[in-house]
Amino acid sequence: MDLTPKSENYVELVQKAFDTQGFMKYLGVEIAELRPGYCELHLPFKPELDQHHGYFHGGVIGSLADVSGGFAGFSLLPEGQAMLTVEYKLNIIAPGAGDFLKGTGRVVKAGRTLTVTEIDVFGVRDGVETQCATAIQTLMAVSA
Amino acid sequence: MDLTPKSENYVELVQKAFDTQGFMKYLGVEIAELRPGYCELHLPFKPELDQHHGYFHGGVIGSLADVSGGFAGFSLLPEGQAMLTVEYKLNIIAPGAGDFLKGTGRVVKAGRTLTVTEIDVFGVRDGVETQCATAIQTLMAVSA
Amino acid sequence: MDLTPKSENYVELVQKAFDTQGFMKYLGVEIAELRPGYCELHLPFKPELDQHHGYFHGGVIGSLADVSGGFAGFSLLPEGQAMLTVEYKLNIIAPGAGDFLKGTGRVVKAGRTLTVTEIDVFGVRDGVETQCATAIQTLMAVSA
Amino acid sequence: MDLTPKSENYVELVQKAFDTQGFMKYLGVEIAELRPGYCELHLPFKPELDQHHGYFHGGVIGSLADVSGGFAGFSLLPEGQAMLTVEYKLNIIAPGAGDFLKGTGRVVKAGRTLTVTEIDVFGVRDGVETQCATAIQTLMAVSA
Repeated sequence: MDLTPKSENYVELVQKAFDTQGFMKYLGVEIAELRPGYCELHLPFKPELDQHHGYFHGGVIGSLADVSGGFAGFSLLPEGQAMLTVEYKLNIIAPGAGDFLKGTGRVVKAGRTLTVTEIDVFGVRDGVETQCATAIQTLMAVSA
Repeated sequence: MDLTPKSENYVELVQKAFDTQGFMKYLGVEIAELRPGYCELHLPFKPELDQHHGYFHGGVIGSLADVSGGFAGFSLLPEGQAMLTVEYKLNIIAPGAGDFLKGTGRVVKAGRTLTVTEIDVFGVRDGVETQCATAIQTLMAVSA
Repeated sequence: MDLTPKSENYVELVQKAFDTQGFMKYLGVEIAELRPGYCELHLPFKPELDQHHGYFHGGVIGSLADVSGGFAGFSLLPEGQAMLTVEYKLNIIAPGAGDFLKGTGRVVKAGRTLTVTEIDVFGVRDGVETQCATAIQTLMAVSA
Repeated sequence: MDLTPKSENYVELVQKAFDTQGFMKYLGVEIAELRPGYCELHLPFKPELDQHHGYFHGGVIGSLADVSGGFAGFSLLPEGQAMLTVEYKLNIIAPGAGDFLKGTGRVVKAGRTLTVTEIDVFGVRDGVETQCATAIQTLMAVSA
């Protein structure tokens, strides 16, 4: 699969799109790594993000998964396009526990219209990663 | 399908579980209606919940869907049990636009171990509902 | 949602597309009802379709679900287009037991590029229907 | 993750369960490789398995995916248990073209009750593999 970015400025374009999403700021998500077809996001724990046992809420895990995949796909777009989430499916395989959540999205199919990503989410405590979710996502490129 | 609640206090039990989730308070979600096997949640818009076009962020839509289904299932549990989300799959079919989001979850299969729900999410503006997402979710009952 | 078919000949177009699929004949699937945005398929039991307990195999249930949704979407296409399955997600909620399987697909979103369907599958024995699966599916229209 | 099989006879147990499924024989599926937590299945092309363009039908791809994951999970079960498919989600990312289909399932979470697998399906022509689908599946262990 060809993962050549269609814009030289893909890093700035992703960061710019990311910065316009109020919800990412509200959660506290940061871009930790970005390569063509790959995006890693970090989200530090705070009590506002928890569920009844003090772990990261499932909705937070799902949100991080969705955005990790979305920007993995976005990184391959030409300037002037944006990515919409068509759908995703997420399995939660362990509690989201740790100092921060790490979401990794990678493109497995980059089509003209549709892009498919695979996503893993990990809880990280003292440098030890425990996978808490896995997902598959479908994205659609649209004119921005 | 038998939707008789296994606890007389199912409304209080759901509300209590809901209130312990910091993330629901942080988003601003409220329980609008609860019946055995059915849960409707409302979430007023605020800029902290938006994406780049000023609509509700997909992660917010997904979170509301997940919790709408989760508490629909929770409403049928006996006292002393809780619901875990095993997985869900969400299609976003329109932008999440409106004064508030409305999430509706309903149980389609209530098994001894696993519960399956179907979920719809709507953007509501001036009383007009526009569906923005549909989902299927699998839940597992565990000892609380 | 507008469910006006874009071709007057949608019934013949669906039947023609259906008839070119060797796998439908091999399974023994028949179109039982077709309306714009809705397709109902029947599949009589035969031992070649079973799993270890003598019920319809999960793969058969999934195949019927996929095709029920696919032709529900196909019914709304203009002449000269075909439907591809982008993805689907299926929950099996009971064994597929009965004299025949009944799959029903209905369009919940008919977009220019993408169509979303919801699908239910039932086992039918002596006229009594028992739901065995529920699914959500994403389709893409392409030039035939 | 611990992938130690709980039965010394896991290969025979899987083969035995596989052989009781009439639908696998009807399709022509064979077990190509089995390790604890991993299963690879092959399915030679025949015209009865095609869709309108002469490729493997999506239902065939989905069936192979479902069973590849199912037996990956089954391989870790103690004697006397069987695996039920709770649900799966499948993205078709290319036509299923080739001399045979190859399905690979691997366990990513082996819980006491639930098992999660990731599955890839490839079309293989003249030794060249092209991925046609990716899936996530949830399984439940039950008494056989």
